[in-house]
Amino acid sequence: MAKSKGPKRPRAATPKGFRDYFGAEVTARNAMLARIAEVYQRYGFDPLETSAVETVEALGKFLPDVDRPNEGVFAWEEDSDWLALRYDLTAPLARVAAQYRSDLPSPYRRYAMGPVWRNEKPGPGRFRQFYQCDADTVGAASVAADAEICAMLADALEAVGIERGDYVIRVNNRKVLNGVMEVAGIAQDDLRTRGIVLRAIDKIDRLGPEGVRALLGKGRKDESGDFTEGADLDHGAIAMIIAFALPNASQSGFVMENESGEALELSLREILEHSLEGKHGLAETDEIISLVRAQGYGEDRIRMDTSVVRGLGYYTGPVYEAELTFEITDEKGRPRQFGSVAGGGRYDDLVKRFTGQSVPATGVSIGVDRLLAALAAKGRGETDASGPVVVTVMDRDRMADYFALVNTLRKAGIRAEPYLGNPKNFGNQLKYADKRGAPVAIIQGEDERKRKAVQVKDLILGAKIAQEATVEEWKSQPAQFEVPVAEMVAAVRRILDRG
Amino acid sequence: MAKSKGPKRPRAATPKGFRDYFGAEVTARNAMLARIAEVYQRYGFDPLETSAVETVEALGKFLPDVDRPNEGVFAWEEDSDWLALRYDLTAPLARVAAQYRSDLPSPYRRYAMGPVWRNEKPGPGRFRQFYQCDADTVGAASVAADAEICAMLADALEAVGIERGDYVIRVNNRKVLNGVMEVAGIAQDDLRTRGIVLRAIDKIDRLGPEGVRALLGKGRKDESGDFTEGADLDHGAIAMIIAFALPNASQSGFVMENESGEALELSLREILEHSLEGKHGLAETDEIISLVRAQGYGEDRIRMDTSVVRGLGYYTGPVYEAELTFEITDEKGRPRQFGSVAGGGRYDDLVKRFTGQSVPATGVSIGVDRLLAALAAKGRGETDASGPVVVTVMDRDRMADYFALVNTLRKAGIRAEPYLGNPKNFGNQLKYADKRGAPVAIIQGEDERKRKAVQVKDLILGAKIAQEATVEEWKSQPAQFEVPVAEMVAAVRRILDRG
Repeated sequence: MAKSKGPKRPRAATPKGFRDYFGAEVTARNAMLARIAEVYQRYGFDPLETSAVETVEALGKFLPDVDRPNEGVFAWEEDSDWLALRYDLTAPLARVAAQYRSDLPSPYRRYAMGPVWRNEKPGPGRFRQFYQCDADTVGAASVAADAEICAMLADALEAVGIERGDYVIRVNNRKVLNGVMEVAGIAQDDLRTRGIVLRAIDKIDRLGPEGVRALLGKGRKDESGDFTEGADLDHGAIAMIIAFALPNASQSGFVMENESGEALELSLREILEHSLEGKHGLAETDEIISLVRAQGYGEDRIRMDTSVVRGLGYYTGPVYEAELTFEITDEKGRPRQFGSVAGGGRYDDLVKRFTGQSVPATGVSIGVDRLLAALAAKGRGETDASGPVVVTVMDRDRMADYFALVNTLRKAGIRAEPYLGNPKNFGNQLKYADKRGAPVAIIQGEDERKRKAVQVKDLILGAKIAQEATVEEWKSQPAQFEVPVAEMVAAVRRILDRG
Repeated sequence: MAKSKGPKRPRAATPKGFRDYFGAEVTARNAMLARIAEVYQRYGFDPLETSAVETVEALGKFLPDVDRPNEGVFAWEEDSDWLALRYDLTAPLARVAAQYRSDLPSPYRRYAMGPVWRNEKPGPGRFRQFYQCDADTVGAASVAADAEICAMLADALEAVGIERGDYVIRVNNRKVLNGVMEVAGIAQDDLRTRGIVLRAIDKIDRLGPEGVRALLGKGRKDESGDFTEGADLDHGAIAMIIAFALPNASQSGFVMENESGEALELSLREILEHSLEGKHGLAETDEIISLVRAQGYGEDRIRMDTSVVRGLGYYTGPVYEAELTFEITDEKGRPRQFGSVAGGGRYDDLVKRFTGQSVPATGVSIGVDRLLAALAAKGRGETDASGPVVVTVMDRDRMADYFALVNTLRKAGIRAEPYLGNPKNFGNQLKYADKRGAPVAIIQGEDERKRKAVQVKDLILGAKIAQEATVEEWKSQPAQFEVPVAEMVAAVRRILDRG
C-alpha cells in the first residue's frame, strides 16, 4: 500500500519509561492506599499533599545516582529559577516543615501518597513515574519515633494482605556503618569515598559480594562495558566492610583476616568498640528493637540487620527496610525472593538546609507499585472489577426507553449503561458486553415493549453453558428469560448475588 | 542582628502558583472524589490513570491561551523529544484511545481524576496545578452519549452535596455557534477570526458584553494596558454574535438592527434557518434536552443556553457547562454567583489526530478545587478531622509503657499516639495535644502506674470549662479523672461518642 501523504501524525505513545493504568489497576491501588491510610491515620498521622513541582533549590540533590548528567530529576528553567518534578515525598516534606514551622504542631506527623518522578534510564518494569506512600515524624529526636514507624510499617503490610511470615523489617543505623568505616580507616570528611562505599553496599543484592568488592577496590565494569570507579580501599578495609554488608551479618559475627593473613573471628560489637559513633548507633538499634519487642513485634517481623544501608545520601541515624520473603518466579523462570517494598530512616539535617536549625525527622516510604505487584503475585490484590449491566439497543429511536431501563437499574444501585455504539449490528452489542465483563444484558425489542417486559440474558451462565453444554442444551437457552419490567431489578440482582 | 555568613540556604517555598494541601483539605477532596467516582462507576465508566508526562506532540495545542510564548504547558527537552506535563485529562485520553484502540471496548467509557498543570500567570486563587475529574465516552457518535453525561454530571453534583436548585447544566452546540458565524459572514476556513470570536464569547462572564464587543471589533486594552487584537467584524456581525452570546439568549429571542438601522426581532431559530450546520446543531441540542427530560431532569437542572461555548479549541458538537447558581461573597464583599464548576463537550477529531480515522468522543471535566470551594462555602465540606488521643510521657525511660497504652487504644480502633517530642516540659505536651485537636490526653505518672491506672483528661470538656467556668469550678477539674488501665478504652470511647 502506498503511504498516505497527509500531514505527519503525532505518535500515540507515552514517553519512554511512562505508563498508563487501566480499570482494576487503578481501583486495586486506590483500595490498597486506602487501607494504608487507615493505618497511618490510626497512628495519628495527618495527610499532606504537596505540589508535584518544586524549585530545584528546595529539592536538593540527594538521589543515589548523582553521577548522571541531569541528576535524576525532570527539570526546566523558568525565568531565573529551575523547577523540577519531585523525586520523592521526603524532600518536599522537609520544605513544608521549614516553610510552615511556626504553624505546624511539633512533632509533625504526616503521611503522603502520590506519584514521584525520576529521570532515570527506563528498563523492563522500571518506570520514571511511580507512586510512593510515606509517613514521617518531624521534630522527634527520640528513636521511639523510629520504633513507632517500624511497627506501623508492619501493621500496614498486614493491613493490605501481606501475611505474617511473608515479610521482615530489617533495622540498621547509619552510625553503625560510619563506625565500621571509621574503624576501616576512611576519614569522616572523605565524603567521596564514604559515598562510594554507601552506594556499593546498597547494591549488594543486585551485584553480589564480588561486585561490591570491586566497587570498594579499583572499580567495576558492568555488562555493558561501562566502568564505575571504585573507592580504592585496601584489602583489610574491604574485607571488614563486605562482612558488615552481608545480610544477617549482625546475627552471626564475621571472620576477617588480620594483617598477617590469619583468620580472626570478630563480632560486630567487638569491631565497633573502637568507634564512639558506631557504639552509639548500636545502642539506638538496641533501643528500637527493645521498644518493638515490648509491643509484641517478634524477631520474625522486625530485626536488626547491618546489611541495610539505604541508598539515599541524607540518612543520619536509624535506617529500615521492609522485605517480602516469599519466592516469586522471575522473568527467566527462576525462583527468587520478592525483595524490598519499603524503606526509610532518620534524616536529621534535611530541614536544617532551609532553616539552619537542626530538626530531627524520620520516616518510611512504601513502594506502592512493588507492593501491588507483590499482592498480585500472592493472588491477594483487590479485583472487584465487575462490569456493568448492558442495556442493548434494538431500536435507536427508542433511546429514551432504554435510558429509562438503565436508570431503573442505577437507582437500585446496580452498575448499568445503555449501549452507545452503533446499534445496527446486534452481535456487536453482545461482543461489547462480553468485553466489558458484563454479567447481564437486557434486551427489549418491540414485542417485549408491548408486553412491558424485558429479556434478561445471564452472560455468566451463558458463557458457562457455551463451554460445557451440548448443542441441545445450548439451544434451549436457559441463560435467557423474560420478566416484566417491574421485576427486572430483582431478576438482575439474583444473578449478581449468585455470581 | 548581624547576618550569618553561612552558605546560602535554599528558600522554603513552593514555586509561584503552586500550593500544598494539609490534613482536612486532603481528606475532604478525597471524600468528594470518592463520591463522584461512585456515580461514574455506577454509570458504567471505568477508571484510567495516564502518566502525568506526555510528549508535546501527543498533547497537541488546544489550550485557550495559545498566544502565550510557552503555550501554557510546562515543557522540557529530552534528547530530540519535547516532554510536557498534561494540561488536562482529555488530550491524554485521546492518546490512549488511539494507542490501545484494538484492545479497548468500543465505546470506551472512562473516568479519570488527578492533577493537571497549566503554565499560566498565577494570581490570587489561580494555581498552576489543580485537580480535574473527568468522564468521557469515546466511540459513541450518538448525542445520547452527551445526554447521558449531562445527566451523570447532575447526579454527581447532587452526590457531593450540591442541592437541586443550586446548580444548572447549560447545553449548547458548537455547530450553533458555527451557524451564527456563517450567517454573520465569517468564512468557515477563517480559523483565526473564528478562534477570536470563540475565545471572546467564552470570556463574556468576565469581560461583560462591552469587552466582548471590543474583541469582536478592533480589539481590547485590558486594565494593565495590554492590547488584544480583535476580530475586526462589522457592526451587524458583532450585534448578531453578542446577542447569541448573552446568557439565556435562546430563551428570549433577540433584537438586531438591519442595514438601515431598524430594530428587527429575530429568534435564534429564525437566524439559523440560513445555516445547515446551525440547524443541525439545534436539532442535536433538542435531542439531548428531550432525552434528559424523559429521564426526569427538568429545566431547573439541564437546559439549552446559547451563551455556552467553552474556550478549548477542540470541541466539535454539543458543549455543556455546570454552573452553581447560589451567591457567595467575593474578596471585596460583593455578592456574586459562584459560577462554573464543570464543563465539557464533544470532540470528534482529537483521536483522529493520531489515527487519521474519525472517532467520536464526548466528555465532562469537573473543576475539583472549585467544587470543593463551593461545598466549603455552603458549609457542606466533609470535615472529619478529629485529632488523635495523645498519650503523654511523664518518664522518658518508660516509653514502652506508653506505647503499650497507645497500642491498646489503636487496637480498639481509636486514633492515638504517644507524645514523641521532648517530654521535659509537660505544658508543651498539652499544648501539642491542643494544636492537634486531640479530644483526650492520657496521663500516667509513677503513682498511676503503681495503681495500674491512668488519668483521662477530657480536652473538649476542659476547653469548654476553661471558657465558661468559675475559678472554683475550674479547680475541681471535673474534666480529668482516673480509671484503671483496663477501663481506659471504655472511658475514652464515652468521651469520643459524646463529642
